[in-house]
Amino acid sequence: MLHQVQTNDNTIADVMEDIGRRAKAASGPLAIASPQTKTKALLAMADAVLADEDKILAANAIDLANAKQAELAESLVDRLKLDTQRIAGIAEGIRTIAELDDPVGAVIAAWERPNGLQIERVRTPLGVIGVIYESRPNVTADAGALCVKAGNAVILRGGSDSLNSSRAIHASLVRGLKQAGLPEDAIQLVPVADRAAVGAMLTGLSGAIDVIVPRGGKSLVARVQAEARVPVFAHLEGLCHIYVDQSADLEMAKSIVVNAKMRRTGICGAAETLLVDGAAAGTHLMPLLEALTEAGCEIRASAAVLKVFPALKPATEEDWSTEYLDAIISVALVDGISGAIAHIKRYSSHHTEAVIAEDSAVAERFFNEVDSAILLHNASTQFADGGEFGMGAEIGIATGKMHARGPVGVEQLTSFKYRVHGTGQTRP
Amino acid sequence: MLHQVQTNDNTIADVMEDIGRRAKAASGPLAIASPQTKTKALLAMADAVLADEDKILAANAIDLANAKQAELAESLVDRLKLDTQRIAGIAEGIRTIAELDDPVGAVIAAWERPNGLQIERVRTPLGVIGVIYESRPNVTADAGALCVKAGNAVILRGGSDSLNSSRAIHASLVRGLKQAGLPEDAIQLVPVADRAAVGAMLTGLSGAIDVIVPRGGKSLVARVQAEARVPVFAHLEGLCHIYVDQSADLEMAKSIVVNAKMRRTGICGAAETLLVDGAAAGTHLMPLLEALTEAGCEIRASAAVLKVFPALKPATEEDWSTEYLDAIISVALVDGISGAIAHIKRYSSHHTEAVIAEDSAVAERFFNEVDSAILLHNASTQFADGGEFGMGAEIGIATGKMHARGPVGVEQLTSFKYRVHGTGQTRP
Repeated sequence: MLHQVQTNDNTIADVMEDIGRRAKAASGPLAIASPQTKTKALLAMADAVLADEDKILAANAIDLANAKQAELAESLVDRLKLDTQRIAGIAEGIRTIAELDDPVGAVIAAWERPNGLQIERVRTPLGVIGVIYESRPNVTADAGALCVKAGNAVILRGGSDSLNSSRAIHASLVRGLKQAGLPEDAIQLVPVADRAAVGAMLTGLSGAIDVIVPRGGKSLVARVQAEARVPVFAHLEGLCHIYVDQSADLEMAKSIVVNAKMRRTGICGAAETLLVDGAAAGTHLMPLLEALTEAGCEIRASAAVLKVFPALKPATEEDWSTEYLDAIISVALVDGISGAIAHIKRYSSHHTEAVIAEDSAVAERFFNEVDSAILLHNASTQFADGGEFGMGAEIGIATGKMHARGPVGVEQLTSFKYRVHGTGQTRP
Repeated sequence: MLHQVQTNDNTIADVMEDIGRRAKAASGPLAIASPQTKTKALLAMADAVLADEDKILAANAIDLANAKQAELAESLVDRLKLDTQRIAGIAEGIRTIAELDDPVGAVIAAWERPNGLQIERVRTPLGVIGVIYESRPNVTADAGALCVKAGNAVILRGGSDSLNSSRAIHASLVRGLKQAGLPEDAIQLVPVADRAAVGAMLTGLSGAIDVIVPRGGKSLVARVQAEARVPVFAHLEGLCHIYVDQSADLEMAKSIVVNAKMRRTGICGAAETLLVDGAAAGTHLMPLLEALTEAGCEIRASAAVLKVFPALKPATEEDWSTEYLDAIISVALVDGISGAIAHIKRYSSHHTEAVIAEDSAVAERFFNEVDSAILLHNASTQFADGGEFGMGAEIGIATGKMHARGPVGVEQLTSFKYRVHGTGQTRP
């Protein structure tokens, strides 16, 4: 086992405060680094990850041995495990981020005032990002690279089961920073497994951390949202709805509903509730339920659906608030678009919802009145993803309304400032 | 005196929670109100304020009598006092907001994906804004109108000395909402003078409040920033710097420096520190100091400035961190643009800074490396204002980096969502 820093709560607080200070110091030079320098660093990181494959696999072997001893669940071991192909994937992910447009310095608005002042709104880095994630070693590279691309310093706190793997990957990233002449502290990995480190990050480390991004399951996100004293980009859950209107093309509705639910059931953009227009109960309901059943999906039916199909399993009140993340869907009949909007308003997690309709007035009302980060018309909820949006890479999806909403990519990891060009103007 | 709700801490908490619930409920219909409806409401509010002049003045007379009895400072009485002209100004301010472009529904970005999905990023209201301000009755109307324009419900908590005046103005605003068929709870005024009401707002009222905007002095903002459990748009202070480079046009520098410091000394965009390029000590320093002195400004000089002008009052270390809001300026000689950037990095409040230079490379470095909300080249810091930026009206200026930065106008009081238009796409 690699050397572990000996700690108690006091020294953890000190270690974390020091990490915060160093991140803040590194954020200055990083914020003004040229796009070329950042690209050079990222490409060097990708090369280093490949060159360091043996070291990374050796560190990963320690984590896997510990996981075995701790009798970690198979699914957790699987996401912890690295191999040549996965390491190549990590390097490729960094390269993809390297090739994105640099967001820093981009002019996002410009106008001239009657007095001749020329005002520009220009993207700037946010500063220091804290990323808290579970034992997925690849997130160390993804999150580190994405934050650096946007000119931010980053403090990474990965799950304790992956600490050795994450350290090895982190060492490769730091080599890339060094090769480009960027401060090594721009990407720091919390070196202790103690949970008190997370608590310290959530305080903001005396103002050093500008935003926290939790990546992981509901309990991690819930803790971060409850305790954080700094802004958080996150979604607690993705309780996504699909509404199938009477005007929907049936074949399209079937293929989208099955895709939205079953393509991958464990992702936040998977549909959890199907709302069918009551006026389509005789035409659309049965084919949709059959298609879902054929695809292997369990159906939990509302009282109105049960009246039509009494053999189905009934949905309880709890079902409407449940993110199954599994091959289960709750199904209700609603009173047209108004009923769909009312149901979604009551139960939605404000992540992603879709409407299937040929009637454009129905889609328009859905788009106007449903208040979720992502709304889709005649497309699958599983498109709720930064890559699918063309953002290149994402650090997560946010359901809050402040600053970032929807997929959080490099642009969402920036702020902005105003540059005003004058020719001697004074204010009268 | 008007009827005051009898309260203790428990009932205040209950009253405030109820206000939060009602604001949240009102925010729904307001968010989907048409631009025409909101404009109609705002114009009706302006008319109502004018029509209600007698009632508003009568209520203001009670506040003024109470203020006299409480021996309130003259400056506080002045900002509390209303007259026909000031009421006309309030109505005019609401009309200006009515005429702004409606931000809600504006498409701020749009692109198409290779699979044909058309993605739009569209402005949406934020939800519920809490505004906490001092005893300035006009803010009741300004803040109420601005929030409604952006489709938000608002909870107004004005200073206790202006409670009667604010109530009378609030009644006029509610008449305007009613005339347009918008929910009366879209603009609520906290009906109790107790400070516990502020504490309740800062908790977010069980998730009802999306953002808090404090308008007032440093102690109010500091309390809000320290205690708020919801996002805050604010600036604690405006410690604005002007750097005069060796390459500066001297006449331009004199006029901008005097304007930046002396036009109005009490506003957040007033300059507090003048940094002069050491290389210009022999050419620019004396004329700048003379111009400031002639304009009635007291000078507090750094050690290097004192060497050249030993008769000046010396600046202490504290001066560099002091927002005078008065006819006083601290002056230092710095080692060119690098020295200016280092000084600003150390002492700035990240509000507004200006560079006076003919050398465009100097301006470019200043623009790139200084991390404040507003940077100006060859123009006065007193342009740091939403109206001067062409935003029509502002609720304040923010120095945070999240969501809103710089002047906070109607656009900054919005969020956004993604609308994705498909033709049956499923994710492979």
